Amino acid sequence: MTIFVKNAWYVAAWSREIDDQLRRYTILNEHIVMFRKSDGSVAALEDRCPHRLLPLSKGKRIGDTVQCGYHGLTFDGTTGKCTRVPGQTNLPASAYVVSYRTEEKHGIVWIWMGDPDRADPARIFDMPEFTDPNWAVHLGDALHLESNYLNVAENLVDPAHISFVHPTTLGSAASENVPVHVKTDGEAIVAWRWIRDAEPVGFFKAFGGFTGNVDRWHYYYLYTPCTAVIDFGSIEVEKNCAEEDRNQGVRIFALHFITPVTETYTIDRWAHIRNSALEDPDAVERMDAAFRLAFAEDKEILEAVQAEENRPQKRRPIRIAIDKAPLVYRKRINDLLELERTEDLAGDLSPAFVYHD
Amino acid sequence: MTIFVKNAWYVAAWSREIDDQLRRYTILNEHIVMFRKSDGSVAALEDRCPHRLLPLSKGKRIGDTVQCGYHGLTFDGTTGKCTRVPGQTNLPASAYVVSYRTEEKHGIVWIWMGDPDRADPARIFDMPEFTDPNWAVHLGDALHLESNYLNVAENLVDPAHISFVHPTTLGSAASENVPVHVKTDGEAIVAWRWIRDAEPVGFFKAFGGFTGNVDRWHYYYLYTPCTAVIDFGSIEVEKNCAEEDRNQGVRIFALHFITPVTETYTIDRWAHIRNSALEDPDAVERMDAAFRLAFAEDKEILEAVQAEENRPQKRRPIRIAIDKAPLVYRKRINDLLELERTEDLAGDLSPAFVYHD
Amino acid sequence: MTIFVKNAWYVAAWSREIDDQLRRYTILNEHIVMFRKSDGSVAALEDRCPHRLLPLSKGKRIGDTVQCGYHGLTFDGTTGKCTRVPGQTNLPASAYVVSYRTEEKHGIVWIWMGDPDRADPARIFDMPEFTDPNWAVHLGDALHLESNYLNVAENLVDPAHISFVHPTTLGSAASENVPVHVKTDGEAIVAWRWIRDAEPVGFFKAFGGFTGNVDRWHYYYLYTPCTAVIDFGSIEVEKNCAEEDRNQGVRIFALHFITPVTETYTIDRWAHIRNSALEDPDAVERMDAAFRLAFAEDKEILEAVQAEENRPQKRRPIRIAIDKAPLVYRKRINDLLELERTEDLAGDLSPAFVYHD
Repeated sequence: MTIFVKNAWYVAAWSREIDDQLRRYTILNEHIVMFRKSDGSVAALEDRCPHRLLPLSKGKRIGDTVQCGYHGLTFDGTTGKCTRVPGQTNLPASAYVVSYRTEEKHGIVWIWMGDPDRADPARIFDMPEFTDPNWAVHLGDALHLESNYLNVAENLVDPAHISFVHPTTLGSAASENVPVHVKTDGEAIVAWRWIRDAEPVGFFKAFGGFTGNVDRWHYYYLYTPCTAVIDFGSIEVEKNCAEEDRNQGVRIFALHFITPVTETYTIDRWAHIRNSALEDPDAVERMDAAFRLAFAEDKEILEAVQAEENRPQKRRPIRIAIDKAPLVYRKRINDLLELERTEDLAGDLSPAFVYHD
Repeated sequence: MTIFVKNAWYVAAWSREIDDQLRRYTILNEHIVMFRKSDGSVAALEDRCPHRLLPLSKGKRIGDTVQCGYHGLTFDGTTGKCTRVPGQTNLPASAYVVSYRTEEKHGIVWIWMGDPDRADPARIFDMPEFTDPNWAVHLGDALHLESNYLNVAENLVDPAHISFVHPTTLGSAASENVPVHVKTDGEAIVAWRWIRDAEPVGFFKAFGGFTGNVDRWHYYYLYTPCTAVIDFGSIEVEKNCAEEDRNQGVRIFALHFITPVTETYTIDRWAHIRNSALEDPDAVERMDAAFRLAFAEDKEILEAVQAEENRPQKRRPIRIAIDKAPLVYRKRINDLLELERTEDLAGDLSPAFVYHD
Repeated sequence: MTIFVKNAWYVAAWSREIDDQLRRYTILNEHIVMFRKSDGSVAALEDRCPHRLLPLSKGKRIGDTVQCGYHGLTFDGTTGKCTRVPGQTNLPASAYVVSYRTEEKHGIVWIWMGDPDRADPARIFDMPEFTDPNWAVHLGDALHLESNYLNVAENLVDPAHISFVHPTTLGSAASENVPVHVKTDGEAIVAWRWIRDAEPVGFFKAFGGFTGNVDRWHYYYLYTPCTAVIDFGSIEVEKNCAEEDRNQGVRIFALHFITPVTETYTIDRWAHIRNSALEDPDAVERMDAAFRLAFAEDKEILEAVQAEENRPQKRRPIRIAIDKAPLVYRKRINDLLELERTEDLAGDLSPAFVYHD
C-alpha cells in the first residue's frame, strides 16, 4: 500500500537546477523528466516512453517537445501527447506520457503529483518574509536521506531530539527536561518550547555573537504533507522577550521541503530566512556550514532508524509524551491516504498551507 | 515461468576461449564448467557437485575428468557420470552431473541446452561465406548486456532504431521515415529497407571510402531463438543496384550470437564477414572499433529499458508499425516455449537455420 | 523457519574485544550492544530502542546504563529496564530492551540467547588444558564467512575434506582413501582417522620439525550446536604410538567457536592449545599464519557452496559414506530445533559439553 499522498504540491527542484537540458527526477517513486520550455515554464513528463519504455531523459529535446532516443516517438512538453511516430502517420490516443503540472514561486519548482483538476496554485506554501526586505532568504542544499519521508517529517516537528542528536550544534543538555507544547493551528501542527536563561547553543554562539545567557525558542510548524518551518532564535535574558516579540531577537526560519523519492529515500531541500547579519557577506556561508553539520547528525540517526525498520519487527514500538506532534502528523497523513484510497463524494481534506505568525 | 527456449543450439563461447583450464559459463541461468578434452572436443558439465554443491570449476581437471575441490568426487567430462567417490567403492547412479552436448564450427562452440535426443548438429547456424575465399571472417567481442535476451534479439530485427540510436555511426536522419519491409522466410524473420540516394553514413564514410551519395541497404535476418545476421552495405547511386546484386557493393554481414545468461543478463558475441578491403591489414581493427562504438550505443539503450522493465508496470506498452518483425519474433518464441512447456505428441517446431540470400 | 538453536551458550566475543565502549554484535540474527560494566562483567542488550528503533550503540554509555542517541531514553545495562524517559516521569513497563545473560571463562565471552531460566553456566564448554601449565593457549582470529553455520560446523567434523581442500597445508593425498571412524560420545560427535607411516604434512613440516615419516591423527569433536575441537598431531613412526598416548607426539587442539550471525553469515573464532614449542617465542605467530592460510581455503569452499545453496535446487544433494558425522550433527540440530519449536513437558535435550580424552 502506498505511503504517499498524491494530491499535494511537492518541491521538485530549486529553480536554478532546471535549464534546457533533460533531467530525471524521482518523486513519489515516479520517474519524471523536467526541462525549461521556451516560455520559461517548467515541463514535467513521465520519464518513460510508452513504446519500449526507454526513459525520455535518454532522448533529446526538440523545441518544447521530447524525442525518444530509441525510435523517435516525440511528445509535447506541456500535454505529454505524442506528436510524431516515425514510420506511420496516425497518432494513437494511447501514445502519450503523463504530464505533471508545475509552478514556480520564490525560486522553487513545485509539482502536483495527483489529480490535475484539484491542483490549486493558491495552496502552494508561502510566507511573507520571502519578499520582505528586512529578511534575507537563502536556498540551501538538497540533503539526501536513506529514510522514509514520514520519519524525516516527524523529526522536524520534534523539539525533544535536539538535546540528544544536536548537543553541540543546535541544542544543549539544558533543554532535556523542558516540556514541549503542541497545538494544531489550521493546517499546521505546531510544537514549541522556550528555554529560559540558558547558555547560548553552539549555533548562536557562532552566529549570534551572544556572550551572556539567553532565552531561546524553537517553534516547529509542520504543514501536511511535506513542508516544515522551524522558527528558532535567541535573545538576551534581560530583554524578557514575549512570545510575539521574537523579531527583536536573532530569529531564523529554517525551511525544509521534503520530497519523498521512494518509500525509503527522501530528499530534504532546506533553506533559511533570517532577520540578522543582513549585511554580513559571510553569514550565508557560515550558516550553511552550521546547518550541514547539524543535518548530518539527523541523517545518521534517520538512516540508522530506517535500517532497523527494514528488519522484521518483534514488538510494537512505544510512543511517549514527546511524540504528541508526530502522532498528530501520522494521523493526518493516514487520513489523507484513506481519502485518496477511496472516493469520498462529500468531504475534502486536501493539504493546504495556512501560515500563522 | 522460464523465458528460455531449451531445445536450441546456443553459442557458448568462441573456440579460442576454451583450453585445458576449467572455466565457468552461465547459459540459460545454468552454471556450466567447460574445458577442452584430450581429443580436442569441448566438455560441458553442470558446474555443481551433487554432493555438497561446490562448483566443479573450483576443483581440478584430471585427464578428461573433473575432481571436486571439496571431497574429491570425480566426474567424467563426456558423460558426467561419477567415476570416483573417495572413502567408498560403490558409485551410486545419482552421483552424476548433467553433461551438455557441444559442437564446434568455424571457431565457435555451440551448446545444446535441452533434450539431448533432439540435438541435431545439422541445424547449427551456417552460411557459405564462412569458408568462401572472397570473404573475410572475423570473430569479435563478447558484449555483456544487463538486458533480457528478447529485447536484445528484437533490437537486431529492428531497422527503425538505427536513425535514433546510431545517428552518427550506423545511421542518419535520412532514413527516419523510410518504410521497413518485413517477411518471414522459413525460419528467418527478415526486415529490410533501402535508403536510396543519400549521404553515406559514418560507418561507410570511415570504412567504404565513399564520397558521393550512395544507395544503402539493411537486411535483418533473425533466426529463432538467438542468431541474427545483419546484411548491410552501400553502393554508388550510379550503379543503380538491384536487390540481388548487393555483392557488387561494399557488403558486410554483422553476425550476433545471443546467449541468454540470466533473465536480465545477456551476452552478444558478434562477428563480421566482409567482401571488401580483404588485403587491408587495418580493416579488422578499424571495423571492430566502429562496431564497439555502435554497440555501446545499443547497450546504453537496452540497459535503460531493462531498468524500466524491472519496475512495476502501470500501463501496457504500445506497439507501432515498425514493430512488425519484433512481434513475429516474440510470437515464435512464445510458441516454442509453449511447445516445451507441454508434451505435444504430434508436432515439431524446433528452431532451425535456413539461410536465404 | 529459523535454523538457530536458541537455548545454548554461544561465543559472543573474545574478552579482549569488550571494553567500556558500546559495540554492536549480531548473533542469531539479533543485534546486540555489549560493553563492560563497572563491576567488570559484560552487559549485552537488544541493540534497538523500543521507541524509534535507533540502535542503542548509536547512543552513549552513562555509568552502567545506555542512553539512546535520539531522545535520551535510558536503559539499565543489567536488566534492560528503562530508567529514564525525558519529558515524562512515568516509566511504562513496555519501555525495556531485552537483556542477555553473559559469562566469561578463559578469556571468552559467552552469551545465552534463549530462555534465561535455562541458562546454566556449568554447561559452558571447558577443557582442562586451558589451565594446565604443560599446555599453551592462544586465542586467534575471528574468521568471517559468508556461509550458514551448519555448513561451517559440518566442515569441522569432516576429516575427508582435508586431502582436497588443504592438500599442501593440513593434509596430503596420502590420506585420500583412509577410512574415517565415527562415533558419538555423549554430547560429542567424534570423527577420526590415523594415517600411518606417511610423509608429514605441510603444517607439521613447518611446525613440528619432522624429517622422516610420521603417524598422524585427526580427531574431530563436535559439540552441538557450535563448538568444535580438532585434536591433531604427528609422531615418529618408530614410536608406534597408541591412541591414548597422543600427548607424546606433537599435539595441537584447534578450537572453533562458531557464532551464527545471520542465516548466511557466520563467524568462526578459532584458538589453539599445544603441548610443544612452549618456549618458542615465534610459535604462536607461525602457527597463526599457518592456520590463516588453511582457514582461507575453507572459506573459499564454504562461500562457493553457500552461493550455490542460494540458488534454486533442482535435485536433492547426495550423501556418501564420509558424511556420517555431519548427518548425525544435522539430525541433532533438527531435534533441538523441534524441541524449541514446541513445548515438550517431558524431555530435555539441551546442548551440553562433555569432554572425552
